[in-house]
Amino acid sequence: MSRDIIKPSILAGFMELIPSEQILFNNMMDTIRKNYEKFGFLPIDTPVIEKAEILLAKGGGETEKQIYRFQKGDTDLALRFDLTVPLARYVAQHYSELTFPFRRYHIGKVYRGEKAQRGRFREFYQCDIDIIGNGKLDIINDAEIPSIIYSTFKDLGFDEFTIRINNRKVLNGFFQSLGIENPVEVLRSIDKLEKIGEKGVIKELEDLGLESTAIDRILEFINIKGTNKEILERLRGLNIDNEMFNKGLEELEAVNHYVGIFGVPEKNFSIDLTIARGLDYYTGTVYETFLNNYPEIGSICSGGRYDDLAGYYTKQKLPGVGVSIGLTRLFYQLREANLIKAEDYSLTKVLIIPMDGCLDRAIETARKIRDNDINTQVYLEEAKIGKKFNYADKLGIPYVIIIGTEEIKRDTYTMKNMKTGEQVEINFEELLNRLKNE
Amino acid sequence: MSRDIIKPSILAGFMELIPSEQILFNNMMDTIRKNYEKFGFLPIDTPVIEKAEILLAKGGGETEKQIYRFQKGDTDLALRFDLTVPLARYVAQHYSELTFPFRRYHIGKVYRGEKAQRGRFREFYQCDIDIIGNGKLDIINDAEIPSIIYSTFKDLGFDEFTIRINNRKVLNGFFQSLGIENPVEVLRSIDKLEKIGEKGVIKELEDLGLESTAIDRILEFINIKGTNKEILERLRGLNIDNEMFNKGLEELEAVNHYVGIFGVPEKNFSIDLTIARGLDYYTGTVYETFLNNYPEIGSICSGGRYDDLAGYYTKQKLPGVGVSIGLTRLFYQLREANLIKAEDYSLTKVLIIPMDGCLDRAIETARKIRDNDINTQVYLEEAKIGKKFNYADKLGIPYVIIIGTEEIKRDTYTMKNMKTGEQVEINFEELLNRLKNE
Repeated sequence: MSRDIIKPSILAGFMELIPSEQILFNNMMDTIRKNYEKFGFLPIDTPVIEKAEILLAKGGGETEKQIYRFQKGDTDLALRFDLTVPLARYVAQHYSELTFPFRRYHIGKVYRGEKAQRGRFREFYQCDIDIIGNGKLDIINDAEIPSIIYSTFKDLGFDEFTIRINNRKVLNGFFQSLGIENPVEVLRSIDKLEKIGEKGVIKELEDLGLESTAIDRILEFINIKGTNKEILERLRGLNIDNEMFNKGLEELEAVNHYVGIFGVPEKNFSIDLTIARGLDYYTGTVYETFLNNYPEIGSICSGGRYDDLAGYYTKQKLPGVGVSIGLTRLFYQLREANLIKAEDYSLTKVLIIPMDGCLDRAIETARKIRDNDINTQVYLEEAKIGKKFNYADKLGIPYVIIIGTEEIKRDTYTMKNMKTGEQVEINFEELLNRLKNE
Repeated sequence: MSRDIIKPSILAGFMELIPSEQILFNNMMDTIRKNYEKFGFLPIDTPVIEKAEILLAKGGGETEKQIYRFQKGDTDLALRFDLTVPLARYVAQHYSELTFPFRRYHIGKVYRGEKAQRGRFREFYQCDIDIIGNGKLDIINDAEIPSIIYSTFKDLGFDEFTIRINNRKVLNGFFQSLGIENPVEVLRSIDKLEKIGEKGVIKELEDLGLESTAIDRILEFINIKGTNKEILERLRGLNIDNEMFNKGLEELEAVNHYVGIFGVPEKNFSIDLTIARGLDYYTGTVYETFLNNYPEIGSICSGGRYDDLAGYYTKQKLPGVGVSIGLTRLFYQLREANLIKAEDYSLTKVLIIPMDGCLDRAIETARKIRDNDINTQVYLEEAKIGKKFNYADKLGIPYVIIIGTEEIKRDTYTMKNMKTGEQVEINFEELLNRLKNE
């Protein structure tokens, strides 16, 4: 061929996996989906490309800068940058076709053209669940969410993780009681506690012009620690006369009570008054989830309660609660921390290697094995036997079946366990038994 | 809220489903995936956005017009318009990390900004399999492909479909033997046979300047019908002294022989000399698949053999064979033809309805049922009992469990079959048995 070769590469900030890693990634995605479905969530799938005016209805800030936006003909298009805005549009658009409370899960790719850096992706999977009420939604839903997080991460193989919750009404009510009417900056400082330490937070609060008595009360507040019961008691003990605070405290108490009944062990769930979770969207319960031994990974599942999902697209009041797992980033972090390894995963259970002249029998055998829902491949190329075994080895296929003229004569199959090296000559029934049970 | 409402809508040419339809769509996608994996195909997932120079390496024609292409900063980007170009780039880029023959499946969305019209989509799912050889790939692989198509469509619930195959070498060799050196225009006419009829084809061939003897032979050729065996015999009987023709005929004979061994019944597989399948890519076997009773839907699974997958990105010779199912279009067509209906599908098997004061017991029961991998939802809102039953009904949830104070006292559960209306009061063991077995 005389044409020039274009160097094959992808754009910076995009994740692409080799198949053994992809299998592992897909396993995680399947596990998440299975758990979401187990709790009665229904799937939706929205277009990756939407009208820019829809996606940017809220507009402003980082979103506008990061979004992939372009023209096609006369149309102003953009790629979705999260699954929440499409959900809002979806619920508003299909309102009359949906049954409320509407429980939906959505697993899909989103796009943010942010500065490329290690561990940051411009295309990544989000795995979202939300429960949307029509006009109202019981607080009990906020208590179910942690049980879904718990079930999902247990199934993903984690034990040592903590779902931390807080309630924005408790925070905002508390700040109101201190006369701080717009607590956004204060919340932003508190959010940085782990990063800049207590002294850093004090410095920032001073810079915001807060009186030292207010700062002392804030520090006292965010230092309320202990068991969930102790924290709730201490919050009650503050005797704060603020309607929002007390409403939030009631919600927090209700959520704490029901989370246990929903089956989340105390050790995996804690109230953490330092969690603020973004600044202008959530209005009640907020969630973050941390791996106890890898706090540097950051929150692996976050979300919260909001009063008004779709105000930009409908006059219907649609409160909701939900969480999201950023799977691409999670996968990347787990791999970096050597917590997952791709090597052990093969979807294909058995490779059939025909000797010369035994191809027909090999193909028939594969068919009979597949009829039992066992993933089976026949090595169809002409090659030396060593190369064929090497193929199974490289792909991590756990079993090889050799079919030669002797085996055909005796109506048997030589089966090799590629891990132990054990090799046996058995009949078909025994072969199937072993493949099914091992 | 005082802000303006933006009418919620999506762009023309994009499919968006309500959840009951989405469940059905996902079931089909899962079935396809399961079948691909059963034959030893490995998953890959490539970025939706790639460098425009990569996606447009081949360039020209419709692709360039239809592609979504845009700038972000200094970078010239585009959305993938198929899964084949990304595969070529992937195999070239990861060549040293892959094991050949490389069997990959890829299920993902692709984008074509073509003129919006009924049944045409600008975003649609493709479900592709390809087997890529390193330097060479045995013809036997071409015989395995129909067995994967067969297995997949059987599992999707179809019986009456026909996989039609042909071989481009047979066609091209035949045209060479007639002295037609560049058969592209002739192939294009033949491809239109079903649309414009035999007279239309003759007219077009005359317009191309073909002699009437050549036209007669072409018509004779494409009118070769019969059983696969008869067609092959008649092709042999033409005694055409052309190397390419005879190589193609040998391939066709080999594929026909092995397809049966791979388990495809004769009735689902036929050689059809009128299938040309595109014009410049395929070099050997070509496939199309039709629903016998709905030929107007067109081919539901197509593909073929090619000599050189990735010549734009590597000097490695990478021959391959593969097929693709355009799932979005297939789903749309099946729904239009009333061959699928969304109503009967619910992922959630049981809705638990707690009576006043019985919420804790309902939540605990849900947990115990979910531990058995049964999708379960608790109705958590306060509402009248009729509304709660209506919820299960609307979502098509097949079973409802009512938990009231009487049931708690007797340690029983009232279970209602929403289809038959049958209602029984049973203990937990019996409840689980019924949910598992019905």
